[in-house]
Amino acid sequence: MMCSTSAPPADVEVSAEGLEIGASIKAKGDAIRDLKAGGVSKDELKPHIEELLELKQLYVKATGTAFGPPPSDKKAKKGKSKAPASGGGGGGGQPKQMDTRKADKAKKAEQARLAAEARDLEILKGLEPVLYPSKEQLEAGVGEPSQRIGDYSLTRSEHETGRVFSSVKDLGAPGGVPVGREVWIRGRVHQVRGKGGSAFLVVRQDTASTVQAVHFKDKENPEDSRRMIKFVGTLPLESIVDVKGLLVEANVKSCTQNNVEIKIDSVYAVSRASLFLPFSVEDAARSEEEVEASQETGRPFPRLGQDLRLDNRWLDLRTPANNAIMRLQSGVCQLFRESLYAQGFMEIHTPKIIPGESEGGAGVFTTDYFGKQACLAQSPQLYKQMAISADMGRVFEVGPVFRAENSNTRRHLTEFNGLDLEMSITDHYNEVIQVLHNTFKSIFSGLEERYKDQLDAVRMQYPSTAVRVTEEPLVVHWEDGIQMLRDAGHEANDFDDLSGAQELALGELVAEKFGSDFFFLDRFPTQIRPFYTMPCPDDKRYSNSYDLILRGQEICSGAQRCHDADMLMQILEEKGVPAEPLSDYINAFRHGCPPHGGGGVGLERIVFLYLGLDNIRKASMFPRDPSRCSP
Amino acid sequence: MMCSTSAPPADVEVSAEGLEIGASIKAKGDAIRDLKAGGVSKDELKPHIEELLELKQLYVKATGTAFGPPPSDKKAKKGKSKAPASGGGGGGGQPKQMDTRKADKAKKAEQARLAAEARDLEILKGLEPVLYPSKEQLEAGVGEPSQRIGDYSLTRSEHETGRVFSSVKDLGAPGGVPVGREVWIRGRVHQVRGKGGSAFLVVRQDTASTVQAVHFKDKENPEDSRRMIKFVGTLPLESIVDVKGLLVEANVKSCTQNNVEIKIDSVYAVSRASLFLPFSVEDAARSEEEVEASQETGRPFPRLGQDLRLDNRWLDLRTPANNAIMRLQSGVCQLFRESLYAQGFMEIHTPKIIPGESEGGAGVFTTDYFGKQACLAQSPQLYKQMAISADMGRVFEVGPVFRAENSNTRRHLTEFNGLDLEMSITDHYNEVIQVLHNTFKSIFSGLEERYKDQLDAVRMQYPSTAVRVTEEPLVVHWEDGIQMLRDAGHEANDFDDLSGAQELALGELVAEKFGSDFFFLDRFPTQIRPFYTMPCPDDKRYSNSYDLILRGQEICSGAQRCHDADMLMQILEEKGVPAEPLSDYINAFRHGCPPHGGGGVGLERIVFLYLGLDNIRKASMFPRDPSRCSP
Repeated sequence: MMCSTSAPPADVEVSAEGLEIGASIKAKGDAIRDLKAGGVSKDELKPHIEELLELKQLYVKATGTAFGPPPSDKKAKKGKSKAPASGGGGGGGQPKQMDTRKADKAKKAEQARLAAEARDLEILKGLEPVLYPSKEQLEAGVGEPSQRIGDYSLTRSEHETGRVFSSVKDLGAPGGVPVGREVWIRGRVHQVRGKGGSAFLVVRQDTASTVQAVHFKDKENPEDSRRMIKFVGTLPLESIVDVKGLLVEANVKSCTQNNVEIKIDSVYAVSRASLFLPFSVEDAARSEEEVEASQETGRPFPRLGQDLRLDNRWLDLRTPANNAIMRLQSGVCQLFRESLYAQGFMEIHTPKIIPGESEGGAGVFTTDYFGKQACLAQSPQLYKQMAISADMGRVFEVGPVFRAENSNTRRHLTEFNGLDLEMSITDHYNEVIQVLHNTFKSIFSGLEERYKDQLDAVRMQYPSTAVRVTEEPLVVHWEDGIQMLRDAGHEANDFDDLSGAQELALGELVAEKFGSDFFFLDRFPTQIRPFYTMPCPDDKRYSNSYDLILRGQEICSGAQRCHDADMLMQILEEKGVPAEPLSDYINAFRHGCPPHGGGGVGLERIVFLYLGLDNIRKASMFPRDPSRCSP
Repeated sequence: MMCSTSAPPADVEVSAEGLEIGASIKAKGDAIRDLKAGGVSKDELKPHIEELLELKQLYVKATGTAFGPPPSDKKAKKGKSKAPASGGGGGGGQPKQMDTRKADKAKKAEQARLAAEARDLEILKGLEPVLYPSKEQLEAGVGEPSQRIGDYSLTRSEHETGRVFSSVKDLGAPGGVPVGREVWIRGRVHQVRGKGGSAFLVVRQDTASTVQAVHFKDKENPEDSRRMIKFVGTLPLESIVDVKGLLVEANVKSCTQNNVEIKIDSVYAVSRASLFLPFSVEDAARSEEEVEASQETGRPFPRLGQDLRLDNRWLDLRTPANNAIMRLQSGVCQLFRESLYAQGFMEIHTPKIIPGESEGGAGVFTTDYFGKQACLAQSPQLYKQMAISADMGRVFEVGPVFRAENSNTRRHLTEFNGLDLEMSITDHYNEVIQVLHNTFKSIFSGLEERYKDQLDAVRMQYPSTAVRVTEEPLVVHWEDGIQMLRDAGHEANDFDDLSGAQELALGELVAEKFGSDFFFLDRFPTQIRPFYTMPCPDDKRYSNSYDLILRGQEICSGAQRCHDADMLMQILEEKGVPAEPLSDYINAFRHGCPPHGGGGVGLERIVFLYLGLDNIRKASMFPRDPSRCSP
């Protein structure tokens, strides 16, 4: 039994914890074999294999011995991280493979260490849960807890302590908290080492700021000091801790606050994380380049699979880049709305459950609605137009849209957030194009100006540059776009939709010619646009509709809409779309409706394309695709 | 056959239009009889009867004769509106019943009128569709169209005309457009009369501003003048028109711009509405008091049923009050976000399609998700908590929530918009209460300050007053609230939820004692709160949770959440909730999570309660309830 998920050597005594992990390894190995037998692709296997490797690391951690046969001898030779080793927690920053002969050699030492740790834990077990005194108690002279280490009793709003916590990013920063000050901070255990004569604790806050807290053996209070060092050593990575101490000058290259550190006075666990994390935030935060470069070293960094990350999205989002992506997503919404408010728009909320008399058709999620079939809205299109008929003038909506399309690509989601707008126009849909241009320009410049830190954090892990946008809208007519493609040697049909490759090529040609990464491709062929699109007045084979192209990919689609009921009925007949389910919508035009137009954008799509990410899932907090509906 | 839906008298020649309406009347009458036979309530019948009456009015309009037997003689005796009669359009401002003897008497005159109108229409038929010249054409000396009346050819973005349109609300207003200026305006036909020697046209813009445009017979151009008068007379109510003319001094009591009127130079229909509107916007805009007071006059105003309004919501939303309600709804969202941004929050978007392994249970809409069952989220609760575990610190969301509850009340919707927030706390959930208090205070004062016009418009039709709020949060403990109720002679149990009546009573007692319409009822019994609620540290029969009560009704619900996985597992067991479907959520706590709390508010509920509306449907653009999933 020398396969990769075999039982451990018989001579090793394994703890209950180790047995549990061993069982998980075995189950995972069986699952992988089943998957392989089922013929799944390498990509699909990847996350499972990564999970298996993680489990094996946990096993090493828990038992001091490797599970299964010795891996290749080639790796794990050189290199030791200069940063404090990730201790206590689950597998963070540990090498992917371990030299088993070394492990065998180290086994006894490790077992001794474990025994020592067990003794230390016995000491720690004597610690009571700490309830920090209330503001009133402190004012009345009740001192701070004599116990300077420990876990808080669960914070259940017992009282307010009145403590003022500092932001980690302010520590030692210009205009921030100067050295010599006693500070309280709350944050996560990012790295930790408590061993021998010292304890090092790197506390991470707001995903991006880190500071080191230290304790060195105090000869005056050797027992307290030993307990402090041991306590810090037991803190699992990702636990939430409160640290109190004196801010002193230091030189800590590995922290964002590199000119200071905290001399620990007290340290308490607010929320103790599990020892077994599916991956470490440090590993999740590495750029592909860094991971790639490490493969030939003795400490190859693990390459975390997308599914493993998404299955534990709350952990994955604790990296500086991923957290910043969410903040940029929030920023896009805010900038979108700010720009539209300034242009006289109001917000609306259209229903997401809409009538579904027909069978729903491909691409639509359906639900039973008190005995009738209803659908989930694929867009707010018909409703935002009815809002125009309702004299709302200029409206926008930020809301979810649902697409039941079985598209398993890096740029499709089954649920995403639409940024939609619709407005009445006086003469021409150029009025809409101007509004869209203003809005996007304002979003792009707003991101670069107001979200510089977040952009930096993202670009550190996923490199990208700012978008070049012209001052006034850059409009390329469809006919001219096709000609540009042909002139450059591409094949292109007059009335068929562009392929992704054609779109990219056109994006490059336009960028070359006009120096802009962003333009309107206008006058789309009528046959590839939806029924509600207004045909061009001069040639009804084309329509008053446009896509916005960002870096060669469609980011927004819009048009003047047909606001005349009779014309609409005619188009529906020509397109073979049944008019009856649309009778309310058509009535909204029969009752008088101003000419109008608008557009719709996918929020995740803006973020994904603006940041040049490789997968749209990275721009969604909890993405949904055909094979994922959790967490 | 003298029942109310009998055929018309045989001696009347009825147009095709009349026959069609007659058929609709008959069908509606049959439907009502069926409903009566089925034993439906008076309330449920009401909208159908109203529709029937509307159809009958349309019949009178189309045929010049009444449909069916003479109604009671008692009404329709006195009173003539001083305002220009609603002409052309469908039934707007017409009396509900018509004295049929009078109608008989008027029949011949009406038929003569119709014949005359038909002749006039012949004249109008000679009119060509007008295409207004482009800016460039005008600059090149191409004059304005010689035809000063007519319908535009459908606006399809032929070109930009460069015309500058005035806002109706600026006409004659201080600092606005002064008399003596030639103006263009675009708006809706609100009232119209074109007859004899004059044409009066009241144009409505942005639902609330109106101005009168006039033409008097011009002896120098009698033929043109006659055509102008006739053309204006044919304009259906609610059509969109462009009017050009000289702004002159006038005294027009019935318009918001009461010190000016426009001497018509040109008038064009941009979008001609149907002659047959389900109701007039004027009727829809009347307050209940006005309708009630009219019942004993000769011109009782119709009382429009809720369903009739909602079936034609785009028309219903054209009233000043209803449109303003939507603008206030938009304002609540904007103020909510502004306040939270200022308090350090970021926006998130949680998925609306969530895993549904269990049968979904009561109250949940389900959908097939690529072969598995999924649910529509009833709240973003679990996801906003996972965002806290993901180190987002302070998050909010504005998004739809879905409740498949068969509650047919005036305060329940099956789909509404949730305003949710969640934040990490240091010591105590009072930190959340403070944030919620700041936020609501900012919303309420923002509405009164920034949305005065909209509030005035709503309060004209639906009277209400501003809300009284204390400077600091007013917190009443559950135990004290129960005692207050008992002291005032109400029955109340210690641990059961309050009934609506108890809630209202407590609201009044608190208002009396503290002079506030708004307070936090804190420390709700644990047994009536969801599993994720943190129990009180001093007595676990109570919990760290609260409702916000506005005018005696719950407007927001919130709590400190349980952030400890072990405690959560124990509560789940005690409550008998299966833990397995919640494993992701629980893992988010196992991986370290700061203490946190939050709250959730229904957007429509805030608007409904703040404005003292009688039905929450009025606060939703396209409301959804168990019997309504359209338009």
